Amino acid sequence: MSSLHPVDLAKAYRLLNHGPTVIVTSAHAGAANIMAAAWSMPLDFSPPKVAVVIDRSTRTRELVEASGEFALNIPSRQIARETLAVGSASGREVDKFREYGLATLPSGKIGAPLLDGCLAWLECRVIPEPHIQARYDLFLGEVVAAWADPEAFRDGHWVFEEGAPRSIHYVAGGNFFETGDSFEVKK
Amino acid sequence: MSSLHPVDLAKAYRLLNHGPTVIVTSAHAGAANIMAAAWSMPLDFSPPKVAVVIDRSTRTRELVEASGEFALNIPSRQIARETLAVGSASGREVDKFREYGLATLPSGKIGAPLLDGCLAWLECRVIPEPHIQARYDLFLGEVVAAWADPEAFRDGHWVFEEGAPRSIHYVAGGNFFETGDSFEVKK
Repeated sequence: MSSLHPVDLAKAYRLLNHGPTVIVTSAHAGAANIMAAAWSMPLDFSPPKVAVVIDRSTRTRELVEASGEFALNIPSRQIARETLAVGSASGREVDKFREYGLATLPSGKIGAPLLDGCLAWLECRVIPEPHIQARYDLFLGEVVAAWADPEAFRDGHWVFEEGAPRSIHYVAGGNFFETGDSFEVKK
Repeated sequence: MSSLHPVDLAKAYRLLNHGPTVIVTSAHAGAANIMAAAWSMPLDFSPPKVAVVIDRSTRTRELVEASGEFALNIPSRQIARETLAVGSASGREVDKFREYGLATLPSGKIGAPLLDGCLAWLECRVIPEPHIQARYDLFLGEVVAAWADPEAFRDGHWVFEEGAPRSIHYVAGGNFFETGDSFEVKK
């Protein structure tokens, strides 16, 4: 089971700043769903905000619009197969948690579950912007709580040690990049 | 000098899908500017659209709003230092092209210059959404032309061969990740 340590909200943008693929979890009225999303990004530092594209055809879209909440879960390479699977199947046709044997943990501040085995989690409340939701499938959210596995992110920094799980970046057709080596540039 | 080959617009989203840090170039009425942006993402496949956060305090913001155009340039690790520099200095105070010795190439369809030495380039026209521009510094654009260095991206795919230049992902405080190893997941 994942170890969730709280992340200072002022540092929460760093969980997404390098552009990892995320998994969106959502819940409403006793139903929950899970899907992958390659298109997300930070939108502001403080309070932290995010933007994410949630297609109008998805079950997740219904649950996010009904609940006004979603969580962004940051998967590691170890669960890339599950990430691809939940981005391919539809929650209209199958209970993806059951189908893929996905364990969840409760959120702290929202109703959506958090996916076990991820590196970090952002709990978000939708900032209602009906025009861009309808026109572009674009959702904005305020991050109301953030968590990370301290083996991957601690003291406000990603710490991808040699051989330890790293985040992933989807391309297309089942192809991903792993997050690569870190390096520092001096001004 | 960079070798620019056209990218099929239907595949242009793949240039951004893995979440690399980009450099935004802009021009209006004889003035041009350049800044880094960690916060961008694809917004749609066809026609391809992008979203990017451009802070209201920047010179780039003025040029993008005045021209209705911008280019997203995808830098490699080889120019990470320049990426950090153009993300730190302001175009109000210095001509960053001159200050950092940055060569440019002409765009095909817009007025903004393209930064030489990058891996790929997306020429964009702003999709006017004044409310989210004003409230969240969030700009949407339609990709009207796309280019890539065939050593990095060809036939619709990134090809980061061993030792060849790769894209980068900004974290904070001068720290980046390089795009790492690619891997394929079978459904």
